[in-house]
Amino acid sequence: MPNIEPVDRFLDQNGARFVDELKEFLRIPSVSANPAHKPDMQRAAEFVRTQLEQAGAKAQIFQTAGHPLVFGQTDGAEGGLTALVYGHYDVQPPDPLDEWKSPPFEPTVRDGYIYARGATDDKGQLFTHIKAIEAWNKTVGRPPINVKFVIEGEEEVGSDNLDVFLKEHKDLVKCGVAVISDTSQYAPGVPAITYGLRGILACEVVLQGPNRDLHSGIFGGSVANPCNMLARLVAKLHDEKQRVQIPGFYEDVLPLTPQEKQEFAKLKFDEAAFVADLGVPAVCGEEGYTTIERRWARPTCDVNGMFGGYTGPGPKTIVPARATAKITCRLVPNQEPEKLMAAMQKFLVANCPPGVRLEFKPQHCCTGIVMDAKSPYMQAARRAVADAFGAQPVMIREGGSIPVVTTFRDLLGVDTLLLGWGLNSDNLHSPNERFTLADFHRGTRASAHLWNELAQQH
Amino acid sequence: MPNIEPVDRFLDQNGARFVDELKEFLRIPSVSANPAHKPDMQRAAEFVRTQLEQAGAKAQIFQTAGHPLVFGQTDGAEGGLTALVYGHYDVQPPDPLDEWKSPPFEPTVRDGYIYARGATDDKGQLFTHIKAIEAWNKTVGRPPINVKFVIEGEEEVGSDNLDVFLKEHKDLVKCGVAVISDTSQYAPGVPAITYGLRGILACEVVLQGPNRDLHSGIFGGSVANPCNMLARLVAKLHDEKQRVQIPGFYEDVLPLTPQEKQEFAKLKFDEAAFVADLGVPAVCGEEGYTTIERRWARPTCDVNGMFGGYTGPGPKTIVPARATAKITCRLVPNQEPEKLMAAMQKFLVANCPPGVRLEFKPQHCCTGIVMDAKSPYMQAARRAVADAFGAQPVMIREGGSIPVVTTFRDLLGVDTLLLGWGLNSDNLHSPNERFTLADFHRGTRASAHLWNELAQQH
Repeated sequence: MPNIEPVDRFLDQNGARFVDELKEFLRIPSVSANPAHKPDMQRAAEFVRTQLEQAGAKAQIFQTAGHPLVFGQTDGAEGGLTALVYGHYDVQPPDPLDEWKSPPFEPTVRDGYIYARGATDDKGQLFTHIKAIEAWNKTVGRPPINVKFVIEGEEEVGSDNLDVFLKEHKDLVKCGVAVISDTSQYAPGVPAITYGLRGILACEVVLQGPNRDLHSGIFGGSVANPCNMLARLVAKLHDEKQRVQIPGFYEDVLPLTPQEKQEFAKLKFDEAAFVADLGVPAVCGEEGYTTIERRWARPTCDVNGMFGGYTGPGPKTIVPARATAKITCRLVPNQEPEKLMAAMQKFLVANCPPGVRLEFKPQHCCTGIVMDAKSPYMQAARRAVADAFGAQPVMIREGGSIPVVTTFRDLLGVDTLLLGWGLNSDNLHSPNERFTLADFHRGTRASAHLWNELAQQH
Repeated sequence: MPNIEPVDRFLDQNGARFVDELKEFLRIPSVSANPAHKPDMQRAAEFVRTQLEQAGAKAQIFQTAGHPLVFGQTDGAEGGLTALVYGHYDVQPPDPLDEWKSPPFEPTVRDGYIYARGATDDKGQLFTHIKAIEAWNKTVGRPPINVKFVIEGEEEVGSDNLDVFLKEHKDLVKCGVAVISDTSQYAPGVPAITYGLRGILACEVVLQGPNRDLHSGIFGGSVANPCNMLARLVAKLHDEKQRVQIPGFYEDVLPLTPQEKQEFAKLKFDEAAFVADLGVPAVCGEEGYTTIERRWARPTCDVNGMFGGYTGPGPKTIVPARATAKITCRLVPNQEPEKLMAAMQKFLVANCPPGVRLEFKPQHCCTGIVMDAKSPYMQAARRAVADAFGAQPVMIREGGSIPVVTTFRDLLGVDTLLLGWGLNSDNLHSPNERFTLADFHRGTRASAHLWNELAQQH
């Protein structure tokens, strides 16, 4: 096992410079959703390439049908393990601008935080891995394992071209394990490794009534009202205990192990604070499960948008022509999205109320994933995180979906280490996004240690 | 009973001129909803005043907080009955313009129809009453009864200032019976008198969940989804037989008399054509009633608009912060709107699903009305219509609301004769609005005969 002391020392001595470089990165307004920022996307990609090269890696930019993607590679000992770091240099739009205390693209340090759009999501987090590589290359001469980088510019707009790239360059991105820092710690002072994610199934259902909006005086009562009927249909999706009523919906659900339930129960969760933060009267979910279990390990069926008829101010007396519900289910292992999409359609059609015509539009889907929390790579990651953060990480699952994790499993046959350095309170996607500088430095150190620990496990 | 022959002859001889004058009226684009047409509103009011004066009536324009209102008066025999004609010179916007075969404000005669915005609603129909007065004044010297006119310019935008005017000028508008031609015949060749209208109750219900849209991955399953919960709430408004479930909703409903049921059943109604025209798979409504009964004499509870969450293209994975339903009930005699508004609120609150907060916003309401179809005035109207149209009118009810009819009853204590000369197929509020010229002339004759028949009943 190489001596990591000079690496740690390098990180300590260069931390201030790293922050300056991160600021430079954060000054580039690489908002992928806004076509006006197209030149900034190219600039941000070039910045990443230059950083990789300065860190001693080979790097190149790949143009895609959308924004460019950066691939980098630095070799460790021959025949050793290869880790693939995924990250994204694009950021969310900064709106609403007037809620920012300092401008979103003028990174500002206040009270130990660096404030800027992208500070944690994902520029700040991905940057730690580049700096860790630099530390190894400039001290030991090479990292303990091979490290590859795939840094894309379209994560905030659906990663349309990422899968295309990965499939076309399967050999280039070949690896033994993937690493992503785009999640969060469990809480301040409680670092976490995420070993499970939910999948998703998205669809839209339209109930078509009359071929035009009708006068509700002349016609009301004589034809089915698509809004009322949509309500009736959507209401059937759950029972009073918030259980999804689609036949077979829970059939393939991988139950939480008693051990997982125990681990989750041990996590500090302040329900009163949760309720107060969201402004809801109470938590509400599937009977028989805790809030953490509901969020991480139970499937859902949520209407994300519902609309029909008149939506302006005041009344308008019509029987609407149609009504629409956008529905997504969060899925957990081992639910099969295609099977459930069919079950969803069948259920909606079977329960279609009278007097309307139903149109079902299936959209994207992605399976949930749960990885072996005790695999050697996970053990290596736990040690690296514990070293850097001074606390044992908790093993958690997350309720969201990161489709590339599924792609890495399906295309490359590898697990992903989801190592979050940031916090849920870092205002991701909101004004005043920030990253604790101490977490930035701890993350960099954890990354440097990770390569070393992974080398031992191989 | 004065000899009506010279009146009829005058109408015959001047019919072509009446059409020319109507065209002049229709050329004024008096679109009340569009502020750009403010000068046209004044022009249209002045046109009506001039027409009333040329017909031998006294007339004046009253400015209101909105568009001007025209009041006219022509005296019959002293001590006789006074009828009050209500109409409106404002018209709906002509959009979509490209669907008109001839420009909306260039009245064009084709195949026996006059095409223009306002041809039937309501310029053409109100004009018949002015021309009938002219015929009496220019032949007999005065009409058989006193006739007053209230012609407003805000019917298509809610008649905000009409009630104010009527209340402030209660003595001026005093009358024994009101007359409105702003409804339709039952079918071509089947003239109708409308003796009942539905009322209305409008409200809005908002379910507030979290204080912001939430990430459906991170939070989905742990908090109530306002869209799903609104669906559950709205679904409770009806049972499977389309009966409204609000306690007491049907309690005060005046049932149809066996005679009314019989009369309605005798009316020709082509359900297949109705279904085909609307493009619905089938009619749908409260069990135990015919389509005509459902439209004219049964109360409803329709969602006119429903919205929450993301309504743009594609999916967006959020748990929406809130969801809203705009609801109106069409009411029938003797339902009391205020009582039902309270019952609606109580029902919604009692059925409010868990995890959300309910806000209820009551809006306007208006009682339904049913008038004595056999009153002497109705009998007089039946004879006048039969004389002019060559067919006995059918006595019908309509599903819509005409609030001024309630005002006339409550403020002036009078019934309204709802005499429709147009047809439902005249494209009211749609492109290519039209009026059958023969119906225009028949309507004018029916109006002239009405004054005579009413004089006999007084």
